[in-house]
Amino acid sequence: MPNVGDEASNKQLIFRDYVTGLPKESDMYVTTSTIKLKVPEGFHGVLVKNLYLSCDPYMRLRMSRVEGYSSSYTPGAPLTGYGVAKVLDSRHPDYKVGDLVWGITGWEEYSLITPTEGLKSIEQGLKKIQHTDVPLSYYTGLLGMPGISAYAGFYELCSPKKGEYVFVSAASGAVGQLVGQFAKLLGCYVIGSAGSKEKVDLLKNKLGYDDAFNYKEEHDLDAALKRYFPEGIDIYFDNVGGKTLDTVLVNMRVHGRIAVCGMISQYNVHQPEGVQNLACLLFKRIHMVGFAFFDHHHLYPKFIETVLPYIKEGKIVYVEDMVEGLESGPAALVGLFSGRNVGKQVVVVARE
Amino acid sequence: MPNVGDEASNKQLIFRDYVTGLPKESDMYVTTSTIKLKVPEGFHGVLVKNLYLSCDPYMRLRMSRVEGYSSSYTPGAPLTGYGVAKVLDSRHPDYKVGDLVWGITGWEEYSLITPTEGLKSIEQGLKKIQHTDVPLSYYTGLLGMPGISAYAGFYELCSPKKGEYVFVSAASGAVGQLVGQFAKLLGCYVIGSAGSKEKVDLLKNKLGYDDAFNYKEEHDLDAALKRYFPEGIDIYFDNVGGKTLDTVLVNMRVHGRIAVCGMISQYNVHQPEGVQNLACLLFKRIHMVGFAFFDHHHLYPKFIETVLPYIKEGKIVYVEDMVEGLESGPAALVGLFSGRNVGKQVVVVARE
Repeated sequence: MPNVGDEASNKQLIFRDYVTGLPKESDMYVTTSTIKLKVPEGFHGVLVKNLYLSCDPYMRLRMSRVEGYSSSYTPGAPLTGYGVAKVLDSRHPDYKVGDLVWGITGWEEYSLITPTEGLKSIEQGLKKIQHTDVPLSYYTGLLGMPGISAYAGFYELCSPKKGEYVFVSAASGAVGQLVGQFAKLLGCYVIGSAGSKEKVDLLKNKLGYDDAFNYKEEHDLDAALKRYFPEGIDIYFDNVGGKTLDTVLVNMRVHGRIAVCGMISQYNVHQPEGVQNLACLLFKRIHMVGFAFFDHHHLYPKFIETVLPYIKEGKIVYVEDMVEGLESGPAALVGLFSGRNVGKQVVVVARE
Repeated sequence: MPNVGDEASNKQLIFRDYVTGLPKESDMYVTTSTIKLKVPEGFHGVLVKNLYLSCDPYMRLRMSRVEGYSSSYTPGAPLTGYGVAKVLDSRHPDYKVGDLVWGITGWEEYSLITPTEGLKSIEQGLKKIQHTDVPLSYYTGLLGMPGISAYAGFYELCSPKKGEYVFVSAASGAVGQLVGQFAKLLGCYVIGSAGSKEKVDLLKNKLGYDDAFNYKEEHDLDAALKRYFPEGIDIYFDNVGGKTLDTVLVNMRVHGRIAVCGMISQYNVHQPEGVQNLACLLFKRIHMVGFAFFDHHHLYPKFIETVLPYIKEGKIVYVEDMVEGLESGPAALVGLFSGRNVGKQVVVVARE
């Protein structure tokens, strides 16, 4: 463990330039600089050692020049994203040396996190980890942004009731695997779609889905949905958008709810696919809501209180896809868009 | 006034056959039959004399074979729709001879309305008119289905706040002209679009809109919206769907709300237009809700209590487009889809 004030070498994953279409590994490169492991005087922040970095589809949006959720990455600077880190030095009253935290950090070994770093302000974004009797990497997934997204999106925005019919796309992903388990805990009937046999098996045999299908093998998605939901869909948890959303719309029931958590099918296209069946919103009086994790911050304590016991009792499980080392980051991040990952994609920078 | 038990001639407007594309006047025809002005024994209903019939865009959906809001019209039978009528005979405890009512009735001079008529059940649908110190025709518009649609859609579903930016399409129509006035009463900034100079003048000079434009003269709707809403749109009250909705999406503000009341641009097309900008729902965390009047029945008493004083004080006005006689019905109904009507389209069958 390095000491405060040491000079250390700092491997970084640099964003090369704005991306159009599918991102490639060569859109990022590894470099090594040095960093003084100390928060400089006058900075109101923390210096952290990064442990686990999260690969999330929304990061693709930040690789474009246009704005989406948040501002674009800066060419020549390290990528940023959610991660788990340990505080090595602090000039912020809320954090002390040795604290474990999760939030927005840099894709590098050590990061200086300050409110003015172009990262999220630390008061908003950097949460102290209180419970360490679960894998720390969970704070990039189950207990982090994807977890609260699944929780807020399903429980708050979908108003689910026992016995309702729930469909989840990208169902074995970081968010989808939790939505299915939440739905089952509530007594819903839940079907997931995913892009490989391995993922479908996971959904059925490990993640508690009532059934699941490989969308790549269904030439007629409408027929598939009618097979799995002969009475229609009450709740659609959308992680993909595009044609899937369009086909789901005609299979929704009256007073159905659609939570739009992601639209991964549309992030790499130049011209978005047109959705033709929006009149179903009217005919079936559907609520369709786009949402983002950071609007639901206030639910985090309740979320943790709800989910931790389930984890300890084995009632909620979580599948992670871990790769080792920053050098593995580009392939892991790019792999999200071909569905290479099985479960939540994590890059291990260092174990504590 | 005919007497109970009389045989009377009954002019009817008959639905010829299922329609594809734009409806034509020849999709309906007038015929005359006879009717005994008495509720037959064993029927739990009322016999009414129809006074005012309402032309509403949703009726186009009932002219197709497919289902939309409600079941298709029956070829060879009279059209049905909202109207104002007077009870001539009753075998229902809630209605007595002489009562004025509004609800679903037939496009004919006299209608037998029973729970089993293929019309809406009278308990659900036929409301007694308590206030007759306003024009009775208002119960097809301002005080009827369009009124409660505007009220529930705007106040309940859009969660409007003083000072917010509101856009209304088909703004001089039966619903739109009220949404604008509700928005102004609450202190919003409200812009409407309509399809002629006459309608735009009406919006600006009579209906209290802050400004309005003729969408047929705006080759670049995106530029027009940016001109009227340089800071973006908080609330979009959608009556048209299609390309307008698509362009509005990119001009919405974060946490915007879209109430989908109608999609008149899509009712006559074989292949609906694709909406490409749905990812804005996600990026801007937008709530988009399709709704229908009949889900908000319970608000009717509160609605009447709110709106009647405004009418009497002249704070809410209402523009009607009246045509005389059932024979004028086909042109009036078809005219909705070319925008011929200026304000709420009503067919006068008889004055009380």
